Amino acid sequence: MATYACRSRAELLNEYAKLNARFADLKHQGLKLDMSRGKPSKLQLDLVSDMMTILTDPAECIIDGNDARNYGDLAGLKCAREYWADVLGCKPEQTFVGGNASLSLMYDLIARAYTHGLVDSDRPWCKEERVKFLCPSPGYDRHFRITEHFGFELVTVPMTPYGPDMDVVEELVQDPLVKGIWCVPKYSNPQGYSYDSITINRFANLKPAAPDFTIMWDNAYCVHEFVGEFQPFDDIISLCEKAGRPNMVFEFASTSKITFPGAGMSVMASSVENIKYLTKLISVQTISYDKINQLRHVKYLKDKAHTLELMKRHAQIMAPKFEMCLKILRAQVTAKGIAHWHHPTGGYFICVAAMPGTAKRTLELCRRCGVVLTEAGATYPYGVDPHDSMIRIAPSLPPIEELEKAMNVFCTCLKLAALEKYLGIDPQ
Amino acid sequence: MATYACRSRAELLNEYAKLNARFADLKHQGLKLDMSRGKPSKLQLDLVSDMMTILTDPAECIIDGNDARNYGDLAGLKCAREYWADVLGCKPEQTFVGGNASLSLMYDLIARAYTHGLVDSDRPWCKEERVKFLCPSPGYDRHFRITEHFGFELVTVPMTPYGPDMDVVEELVQDPLVKGIWCVPKYSNPQGYSYDSITINRFANLKPAAPDFTIMWDNAYCVHEFVGEFQPFDDIISLCEKAGRPNMVFEFASTSKITFPGAGMSVMASSVENIKYLTKLISVQTISYDKINQLRHVKYLKDKAHTLELMKRHAQIMAPKFEMCLKILRAQVTAKGIAHWHHPTGGYFICVAAMPGTAKRTLELCRRCGVVLTEAGATYPYGVDPHDSMIRIAPSLPPIEELEKAMNVFCTCLKLAALEKYLGIDPQ
Repeated sequence: MATYACRSRAELLNEYAKLNARFADLKHQGLKLDMSRGKPSKLQLDLVSDMMTILTDPAECIIDGNDARNYGDLAGLKCAREYWADVLGCKPEQTFVGGNASLSLMYDLIARAYTHGLVDSDRPWCKEERVKFLCPSPGYDRHFRITEHFGFELVTVPMTPYGPDMDVVEELVQDPLVKGIWCVPKYSNPQGYSYDSITINRFANLKPAAPDFTIMWDNAYCVHEFVGEFQPFDDIISLCEKAGRPNMVFEFASTSKITFPGAGMSVMASSVENIKYLTKLISVQTISYDKINQLRHVKYLKDKAHTLELMKRHAQIMAPKFEMCLKILRAQVTAKGIAHWHHPTGGYFICVAAMPGTAKRTLELCRRCGVVLTEAGATYPYGVDPHDSMIRIAPSLPPIEELEKAMNVFCTCLKLAALEKYLGIDPQ
Repeated sequence: MATYACRSRAELLNEYAKLNARFADLKHQGLKLDMSRGKPSKLQLDLVSDMMTILTDPAECIIDGNDARNYGDLAGLKCAREYWADVLGCKPEQTFVGGNASLSLMYDLIARAYTHGLVDSDRPWCKEERVKFLCPSPGYDRHFRITEHFGFELVTVPMTPYGPDMDVVEELVQDPLVKGIWCVPKYSNPQGYSYDSITINRFANLKPAAPDFTIMWDNAYCVHEFVGEFQPFDDIISLCEKAGRPNMVFEFASTSKITFPGAGMSVMASSVENIKYLTKLISVQTISYDKINQLRHVKYLKDKAHTLELMKRHAQIMAPKFEMCLKILRAQVTAKGIAHWHHPTGGYFICVAAMPGTAKRTLELCRRCGVVLTEAGATYPYGVDPHDSMIRIAPSLPPIEELEKAMNVFCTCLKLAALEKYLGIDPQ
């Protein structure tokens, strides 16, 4: 069959009628499916729930004379710092192990830059006339929201399959108002792209005009392959050190998608100077994070090698869902020439680039059939996709049978929206 | 025996020589005791460590269709909000249940007031020319540090046995630059005073000039009696509501001294409008707090009545330590007329008001004997006690035998410092 672009108006009208009939059917099925967020499924939570019984002996809480049950160890238990150094490929003294959410470590870092400034700041960012922040897009809405929340100007940087367009980044950082950039370097949210070595090295060798320019390196999916083996990844911290700007990067990760999303362990990694500076500031906010949970995690995950074994088991749950989505997309959409997408091998999302001007409409139609996806535009600064094209699909949460139904709805709606466009039909 | 003030110089010199000999002995014992922080003892941690096995069945994590192991429920599990409403005597919808530290809920509230403003703010506090904050003193150093950290001017308010001097407070809040006040209303840190009903009602009926004046009501010791029965306490939230300023107060509490100091559950309580406003702002910082730990706590602590039973068992550990301290103080110091203190019946501290000008010196002498107490001055804004008099003793952590040794050191040093003063001896 020809792409929609190559069909006659009569053929398109015929297809439109068929799809509309199908849409009416789907609507009457009364579905109620949520694919809006990258939430692990119940199967994945059950997979790791033996962690709930791994630390039951209080004697195990006493390590090197310190009691994990009591106040102290603000930067994290020694064993937790060693665990993360192993996973991220940095040094324990370069890590700060936090509570259950890396997002709050990121928020708190930006908040501290705003209220107090970072190591190399001339002044707190709230005292700057204007602050700009680079947002490779499509990207992660919660990142963008943090910097929007503090009134920074969000500057869109185009994404490529190798990472953010570094020609653009290198030019933009000449502006001293530009204070940082958001990155999800491995299995980027939402496209599932991994930055290549050239990109990572260009990041480490950036010469930004702002002395306190900060790379927010959210390595959320650092061990989250669901197809094939673990992919080694350059350590941005040592690369920045080599390039002479050790304080330029903060890396983040968590076990939210390794153990429990609501009750995991997070980490921030950076130069020793940055970690010391931040630890001092954080001592005003809290006495220590939950070290019993840190200990529970270290006992359960052990080290990087053992964590990768667990990730293989997550992959067994994740992979069939992604396969299913991609298979349905391929079968129902590819030949129509109305959208394209990357086949990710890790991470949590599939990002469909729909025909410009049809993303919102597609999601509106999905909603009418009871299928909720991430809001259109969410992957761009201020929630506005200039081309109204990018749609993020999060296949992880629903059971596979439901996912199949949801994808059938999605493909039908995607095609309907495209046909309306081609046919000049005003959406009601 | 007469007080030091009534003794002759010869008698004082005689006493000084005896104490100096004693001091030399104590110094050679090579003690290493820390009474600087209100840390629960190992016995207390062991007392509650059966909590580590109370939640092992993942099926129990699924409540009302929601999975505590997954993202969501930012304001806390329903059962956790109900638990705190029961303990504090407010409504579940007036609570926000956080992570392991109420201190970070307080920091975050002040930080948000600074960066974004509160419900009734005209502008974020960082946009104000000056911000003043009232600090009833002696008080809690970590409170004062938060507001100092944001560059506020700390204004000392005298403490009385019934709470802060409300005449002073009522006058100071006429100044629109005064944005708030720190309070530990029950078993105040460090004096162990509980605000009386008159004081609490005067708080609720304050008419501050600043529309966003905020009472930081840190009810850290809300169920922490160690002598006698639980003392009911007026609910400041409903009192402020009745007085027509429902948004004026935020109450805080945690299980840090009920279960584990490093791994407990915290709460912030206020008007429904405040909680809604804050929940929206907090949604930028995090997706949710550790709900598995919330559930663990609710299963373990059950309700207020059951929590009070547990507190009785904590009291059995705490009371003998306080008795010991007070007994030694009474035996060795009372008759000298050089210090006074309140006998607390709850909380974590004894506050000794030493002869003016001798607190620092006393602690310096203690340190030489290997006994570390909270730094002198710490209980005042900027760490400066204008009379160099207040000394905070935290008897909870050391085993009772060690505590006895430490108190002997303390009393000796306290008397030595007073004698130096009386005798005009220059401390070397």
